[in-house]
Amino acid sequence: MSKNILILPGDGIGPEIVAEAVKVLDVVNQRFDLGLNMEHALVGGAAYDEFGTPLPDVTMDKARAADAILLGAVGGPKWDNLEDRELRPEKGLLGLRSGLELFGNLRPAILYPQLADASSLKPEVVSGLDILIVRELTGGIYFGKPRGIRTLENGEREGYNTYVYNESEIRRIAKVAFESAQKRGKKLCSVDKANVLEVTVLWREVMNEVAKDYPDVELSHMYVDNAAMQLVRAPKQFDVMVTGNMFGDILSDAAAMLTGSIGMLPSASLDKNNKGMYEPCHGSAPDIAGQGIANPLATILSAAMMLRYSLNQAEAADAIELAVSKVLDQGLRTGDIFSAGMTKVSTKEMGEAVVAAL
Amino acid sequence: MSKNILILPGDGIGPEIVAEAVKVLDVVNQRFDLGLNMEHALVGGAAYDEFGTPLPDVTMDKARAADAILLGAVGGPKWDNLEDRELRPEKGLLGLRSGLELFGNLRPAILYPQLADASSLKPEVVSGLDILIVRELTGGIYFGKPRGIRTLENGEREGYNTYVYNESEIRRIAKVAFESAQKRGKKLCSVDKANVLEVTVLWREVMNEVAKDYPDVELSHMYVDNAAMQLVRAPKQFDVMVTGNMFGDILSDAAAMLTGSIGMLPSASLDKNNKGMYEPCHGSAPDIAGQGIANPLATILSAAMMLRYSLNQAEAADAIELAVSKVLDQGLRTGDIFSAGMTKVSTKEMGEAVVAAL
Ligand SMILES: CC(C)[C@H](C(=O)O)[C@@H](O)C(=O)O
Ligand SMILES: CC(C)[C@H](C(=O)O)[C@@H](O)C(=O)O
Repeated sequence: MSKNILILPGDGIGPEIVAEAVKVLDVVNQRFDLGLNMEHALVGGAAYDEFGTPLPDVTMDKARAADAILLGAVGGPKWDNLEDRELRPEKGLLGLRSGLELFGNLRPAILYPQLADASSLKPEVVSGLDILIVRELTGGIYFGKPRGIRTLENGEREGYNTYVYNESEIRRIAKVAFESAQKRGKKLCSVDKANVLEVTVLWREVMNEVAKDYPDVELSHMYVDNAAMQLVRAPKQFDVMVTGNMFGDILSDAAAMLTGSIGMLPSASLDKNNKGMYEPCHGSAPDIAGQGIANPLATILSAAMMLRYSLNQAEAADAIELAVSKVLDQGLRTGDIFSAGMTKVSTKEMGEAVVAAL
Repeated sequence: MSKNILILPGDGIGPEIVAEAVKVLDVVNQRFDLGLNMEHALVGGAAYDEFGTPLPDVTMDKARAADAILLGAVGGPKWDNLEDRELRPEKGLLGLRSGLELFGNLRPAILYPQLADASSLKPEVVSGLDILIVRELTGGIYFGKPRGIRTLENGEREGYNTYVYNESEIRRIAKVAFESAQKRGKKLCSVDKANVLEVTVLWREVMNEVAKDYPDVELSHMYVDNAAMQLVRAPKQFDVMVTGNMFGDILSDAAAMLTGSIGMLPSASLDKNNKGMYEPCHGSAPDIAGQGIANPLATILSAAMMLRYSLNQAEAADAIELAVSKVLDQGLRTGDIFSAGMTKVSTKEMGEAVVAAL
């Protein structure tokens, strides 16, 4: 029973951090006899440079054929001024999400006890923080039509996008969220702006409907402005949060930053069969690319998530997570999570330390 | 030269906190011989209960005729289940903003040194925090059409809203933002999602265009997800931020909460002639309404903002702000900002202390 894993290093620090995650996967592949076959392909700016498009057919074909995908990150100033917006690196990422129908985006925000100091929040506010944000990833205003920039009769230009969800899109992400909550603290907070936006009035209705099938989960609703406030004020009140694509983009980044160590946070994007794409929550960090100082742990933990969710290899996933915890206990830190008294290590040294800890 | 001020107490704690602000206005009115005439009217749930609509014509007429408006807050569970969404309290507020073309919403997030402990962030991250968020308030997805919930051919329902801005809407809020920045630290950060949403591609273009008229202001751009992160990580990097209606709703609440004392923050909503509506950043807090424990300071400071921006009475505004600072120095605190060693006071006692300090 071999499994095909597609590796998409992407841009910026992507190739460096993915290389370390691949080393870790190689080790667990052997140790647990997982039968993983790893193939590489280009996406984002790297693909544009080679093929003139951020999502070449060859990449999309391999992605469709794969059992799971591990992605680094895409984007960088080099491609920011491409006239044709369809050719920018981000479109490669959005094309993968949408083309593979990876509608269920899981973004954990966990504070590692070893890194408690890194947070900009007071220790008592964030210690033990463990939130899961479930973000709808293939609908909403990211993909809604009509969209564009047009010239009005008076000669002025107008930009427009459409925020749209239908019942089945909301229902399927609701199910992902309720099921996630069932496996955790059984509390789900759905975030919307139902006092202003009709599309989120429907969102709230469908959430309430789906809730009937999960009587063991306590559902609450919160307006997005209040949710942003509550994340700053008292984030530990949350267990699982579910929201649309745009609000999820904003809230998951805010939640991740509460931990102070976004270099530690993995994410999963799943289709209805739990086939998934896994990537770190952080971006391509072009400012430090090529210097060998980026933190590979979020990508390594993304590989662990991949084993757990798409490949049903909980044991191998546990082993990786334990190894990451061990290297933190050893005091090893890349620059982004460094603090006095710890040992500063490079991307490669960190990857090798995880391999050794395995 | 008399000036007409419309007082709109609204719902929940609105009437209690507005009463204290009116006392303060009465005092400065006499002391500085301002010639203020104050009239009251109903809005929100209170107006619905009396007239069957959250924004009666009589209120709108008085609002049009007034030189400035002081509002408490609107909304509460009592009206949350009104079948006809057009009758909910929030529609009264949105109707005032839109009907009076109050497009320029100024939301300061200031950490009072006396209240530094109240923040959930570490002192070194927020001490001295002083950000101004400029939010576009009469356009964007709040008012865009088409909007609604429709039934598709397959019988499913679909909710939709439209995020739309034209060049002149963006230009006029850009000017407000650049002029605000000129009067402060001369740094302006425009927040958008130009890597995904076309409407914000136009936003960014127009911001760059308007920037040419303000060479002394340093303009930067940031994606909204990153802005949410940076507000948590290192908020003092910002001076003025400008963004659309929806992003502004979210970011201004997050920024306000960084201070830990949202009961202290005023806001102004201005039209093109600086006629304005002034209200506290916090909501109607129905859970504590009628108990006489709400913090009236945000409303009192909103009255000061009104004197400064719409009535050109900087001296009277200064006097109020100084008086507020004095009562904080005296250790007086309502419950929301209370900490050990301070003196807990009621809404009324706080208002009277400000009057005494004047
Ligand atoms: C790069 C960008 C298009 C993307 C998004 O907005 O979804 C990123 O911010 C993310 O959250 O994965
Ligand atoms: C009450 C609501 C409609 C309003 C808004 O979303 O603008 C409020 O949250 C605000 O920020 O003033």
